[in-house]
This record gives sequence, structure tokens and C-alpha cells, in this order.
Amino acid sequence: MTTLLNRRFLLRERPSGDFDPKVLQRVVEPAPVPGPGQALVRNLYLSLDPTNRIWMSEGDSYLPPVPLGEVMRGGGVGVVVQSNTAKFPVGAKVGGLFGWQDYALISDSGEQIAQVIPGWLPVPLTATMGVLGVTGMTAYFGLLDIGKPKRGETVVVSAAAGAVGSIVGQIAKIYGARVVGIAGSRDKCEWLTKELGFDAAINRRDADWRAQLKAACPKGVDVNFENAGGEIMEAVIELMNLHGRIVLCGMISQYGKDDRRNVGPGNFVDLLFKRLTLQGFIILDYVPRFPLAQLRMMWWLKRGLIQDRHTVVKGFDNAPQALTQLFTGANTGKLFVEFDDPPKG
Amino acid sequence: MTTLLNRRFLLRERPSGDFDPKVLQRVVEPAPVPGPGQALVRNLYLSLDPTNRIWMSEGDSYLPPVPLGEVMRGGGVGVVVQSNTAKFPVGAKVGGLFGWQDYALISDSGEQIAQVIPGWLPVPLTATMGVLGVTGMTAYFGLLDIGKPKRGETVVVSAAAGAVGSIVGQIAKIYGARVVGIAGSRDKCEWLTKELGFDAAINRRDADWRAQLKAACPKGVDVNFENAGGEIMEAVIELMNLHGRIVLCGMISQYGKDDRRNVGPGNFVDLLFKRLTLQGFIILDYVPRFPLAQLRMMWWLKRGLIQDRHTVVKGFDNAPQALTQLFTGANTGKLFVEFDDPPKG
Repeated sequence: MTTLLNRRFLLRERPSGDFDPKVLQRVVEPAPVPGPGQALVRNLYLSLDPTNRIWMSEGDSYLPPVPLGEVMRGGGVGVVVQSNTAKFPVGAKVGGLFGWQDYALISDSGEQIAQVIPGWLPVPLTATMGVLGVTGMTAYFGLLDIGKPKRGETVVVSAAAGAVGSIVGQIAKIYGARVVGIAGSRDKCEWLTKELGFDAAINRRDADWRAQLKAACPKGVDVNFENAGGEIMEAVIELMNLHGRIVLCGMISQYGKDDRRNVGPGNFVDLLFKRLTLQGFIILDYVPRFPLAQLRMMWWLKRGLIQDRHTVVKGFDNAPQALTQLFTGANTGKLFVEFDDPPKG
Repeated sequence: MTTLLNRRFLLRERPSGDFDPKVLQRVVEPAPVPGPGQALVRNLYLSLDPTNRIWMSEGDSYLPPVPLGEVMRGGGVGVVVQSNTAKFPVGAKVGGLFGWQDYALISDSGEQIAQVIPGWLPVPLTATMGVLGVTGMTAYFGLLDIGKPKRGETVVVSAAAGAVGSIVGQIAKIYGARVVGIAGSRDKCEWLTKELGFDAAINRRDADWRAQLKAACPKGVDVNFENAGGEIMEAVIELMNLHGRIVLCGMISQYGKDDRRNVGPGNFVDLLFKRLTLQGFIILDYVPRFPLAQLRMMWWLKRGLIQDRHTVVKGFDNAPQALTQLFTGANTGKLFVEFDDPPKG
């Protein structure tokens, strides 16, 4: 039996400012050998998410930072190739936090996030990272549990052509809201309005984007699903109605700041004056409630009410460069890497 | 019949920075004469509140700013001395937004906030500005509707020896919470712990107040009733537990800033990481729900579970100087002015 070789990206140093691929160091090591109760996963897809940047920074966030010199944390989907546990039989597809590497060890002790993906799912495997995965669940629970849009209300979602934002807008349409997206290019805006049914989409690179946003929300804004932060968040708060709700899901525009201080909106006092409710939101809290939401999402997918778009980068070696797409706005929909064959031992 | 003379304080200019009494101009004018459907109120007490400073600044807040050259807006209690309406008979005690003046016109059209205070109330008239008034209602609804403290949770209230804060802490004790107050002097802290039953009180003028606060909250903070803003709010957010609630009631430390921008907490990103819920809160939204809350407050007062403390300044001419007490922290409990006799015409 030849040794399996395992490409891994280790966090070499903490990024200063924007994410730079060179903070990740590629190494090739022998793949680990599963012990009792363990199984070896060969990764098929690596999910790239804005929150990856948060995990690279020093200081706690909602998870401890990735330790320097260790494999970069990341979500993904793989297949079990060796197993000493009935919980993860060989051939089973699994989803979890398998890291930036070809092969990951998982165990039946429940220490890691790792879950078998049932074979009967009537959707492509990649949907388990998108609409049925953390991305889709973030959109679902953030919008419905916290945003609580009512029919006829106006929902504004930032980073609207991203993995989460594009699903948020589509669910808000199912619930009868007026949906306005803010995105980073004319093509993305066209996709949002023409294909996903958004009522309006604003290109934040237009000089007059604020005026466009205001015009697109003639009755003000009731729900802000916030992925961007910074001046975009401020502009939406400016338009919010009394008693509006802000789902604070992310602030991708601020993740490149070396210092996490003072990244809040300059018009914070309007939260008081307008009696807004702002709720910070991390999807990990909702894992026990995923199954029902996933069933509803599958139903919406089947009926064509939700479209699940991907931007796929082929070849694991391209992962660090691919991650920059999230921060330059190059991707549309869910961004992931498709693994190629690892080198032979 | 001699003409009634009416002392009034007009807003001469908008304060730059901290409130300065000289922005108010004292004038003496003949009192107005009530027309059909109107009544004349002689003010007995003028309520002084941090929000008065907000009303003086340019730009909308939750109410339009007081126009320059017009009488300063203010709450108070008075007695009807002339009347052309059965709604407000002569001799009736009334509470409302009567302004900084000896005499105010009210009308039965419902345009102004003016309400008859029933004669059977088993509490002093001044309690209708304190525990039964806007102050007490702010504490009641902010804490119970938004903060929702559970038995054994830790509630931190800032400006804790103020009119609202002192009531918040006492209600939180009734509900079985651990209550920690932040106040501006050792005397106030002693009052909070020895007389009001707070579990701990931190003097924010102590050099090590942050360490004291941390020590006083060994299980972290579940509810932050925020009256102060600025570094105090930041220090409490630092200690908050996952899924904590922030009642954003006021930010008195920030009202002296000429620019309302960037008055939010520097550690805003923790709202995301800790999944906190922050809700801006203005008591005007709760007026229809006052009666039941007032009944409960009366019951707590009678049973001695709530103490209603006042700082009374005698003589209407002293009102502008008295207002500075709120911003220097000189008052304890509810601050109001007791009117003396106006000059004779």
C-alpha cells in the first residue's frame, strides 16, 4: 500500500490588513492513519467563506483563532476512504469542518463537526455547502428568526450576490417582501433582478449608489440583512423605519482592518432614536434546527423558488488565491474549491 | 383682574458641546388666555431629564429639535387655573409636556401630551414624574420588555443612581437578578447597595473601576441597561455573555458631542461575535401600556420594594443651572424643579 500524500495549507502568519494568500503555507505530508473509532475523509470540495478571514486574526471572535503553524480551518464535503467506525462507513459522503487539506481525520466521539450526508438527497452534493448548508441556513434563520419580514415590508440585503445574500433575497421574496439588494457590479445586479426576482439591485460602485438606494426604498427599510458593514450599513440605517430590525450577520468590508475596534456604524445613535433592534447572529447556534429548514429549502429548490448558484475554482492549490475573490467581490453565489487528485506517494 | 406674568426660558442658541445654561434666555411675558376648548396650567414641578439636551441639538432625533427662540420643551406637573373645557376642570392636577414656563396652554383636542392625574393616587404628586411617570415607565418597560432578566442572571445598569437607573435596579431585584450598578460617586454607590439592595455598585471615578466591574460580575453580564454610552458601555459589552441583551435607553456621556457621529461602542463587532441583541428604546412608544405598569409600581412602592428618591431644586429661575447636575452627576434619583410664585403683574 502506497502512502497517501496530504496537501495542507498551514497558517504561516496572521494577515495584516486584507487577506493575502502568502499567509498560507503549502506543505505535503503523509496522510494520517485512522486509529480506533476514527475515519479518514478525502475532501471533495472546500467551502470558502468570509468568516475564514476572521479566524485568521488574533484574539477570540466566536471561535478561537486558527493557531499559527496549524492547518487552516475550513468547511467542506468529502468521502470516507478508510474507517474504523460504523458511524462513518467507507464510501459515505460527509460534511464538516475538515480544514484546508486533502485528507482529514474524523472520529465518532463527536469532537469535530462532521455529519454523514444521506444518499437520498434529491440535490447535488455541492448544495450541502450552499443552500442546504451553512450558507443557506444562515440566510434562512437570520432572515426568518431575526429579520421577521412581513408581507409588503422592505428588506435590504448587502453583499446580495454572495452566497448568503442571494438566498436571503429569494426567501424574502417567498415571504412577500419588497427586496432590494446591494452588490458590487452591474452584472451581479442584473442577475439579482432578472434571475432571482429582486425588486431592485444597487451597484455600490456607482457614484450615486446612495441616491439609487433611497429611490429603491420609497417606503423606507424595515429589515436590514447586513453582510457588509461600513458605509453600506450606515446608508441602510439612514433609511430605516422606526422599529426596524437589523440582522447583523457579517461585516465583510471591515474584516481587513488590523484593529477590530471602531468598525461599527457612525450613525449608531440612530439605533436609539429609531428604536431599531440589532441582533448579532452566528449560525452555529442554530445547528439543532437545521433539519426542518433544510426540508423547506429542498422544497423551494424543487419548485424553482430558490436558485443555488456556485462559483467553482478547480484545483486545491488554487484555494488561497480563490479566497481573495470574496473580498474583491469576484465571485457570484457560493464560492468553493473542487479538489483535484493529491500527489502520489 | 391683574395680568398673570409668565416666566419662560427660550432656547436662544444651540449648545456647542456640553450644555451651558446661557443657551437659555429668560423672558417674562403675559400669560396666555385660554380660548374655547383650552385651559391654562400653572406649573408646579418641572422635570429635568438627560433627553432635554438631545432636544436642543440641530437635526431630528426621535422628536424635532426645539426651534430657536421658542420655549424650551420639558415635562412637568401643574394645576389647572383657568378652563374652558370639561376635560381639564379648574383645580385638576395635570401632567404633560408643559415646557419651561410658569403657565402653559393646553387644549382638549389632544394635540399636546397632557393628562389629568387622578386625585385618589396614594402617592405624592411628584411620584407622577418619577416612579409612576416617564422615568419609572422607562425603567419598567425597558427592563422587562427588552432586557427580560431571568432569575439569577446578572443585570448591569449604568447611571445607576439616576432617575431611571435606580428604578431599573430595584425592579431587577424584584425579578431575582443579580444587580450591579455603575454610578459616579462613593455616596451614590453606598446608597445603591445599602438602601436599594443592589448586589454591587461601582464608582466609575475609581481608577480601577473596570477591574471592580469585572469582579462584581463573576458569571458575566446577561442584561445591560445602558444609560451612559461611551467607555462604560464598552466595558459592559466586554463582560457580556453570549446571547446577552442590551437595552439602549440613553447615552448621556455622549450628548455633549457636537457631532452625533461615531458615538457607538468601539467594540461593536462583539455584538456579532457574542450574538448580542441591542434594542433602541424610547418610552413614547409605550404610553398605551402605562396603566398596568403604574398599578404594579404603586403596589411595589406601597410594599416598600421600590424607593422613589428625588433631588429637588427650588425656584424656577434656577432651572437652567439645575439641568447641569444631570451631566456632572450631581443629582441622585429623579431631578426636578419646584416652581416658586411667578412675579406679579
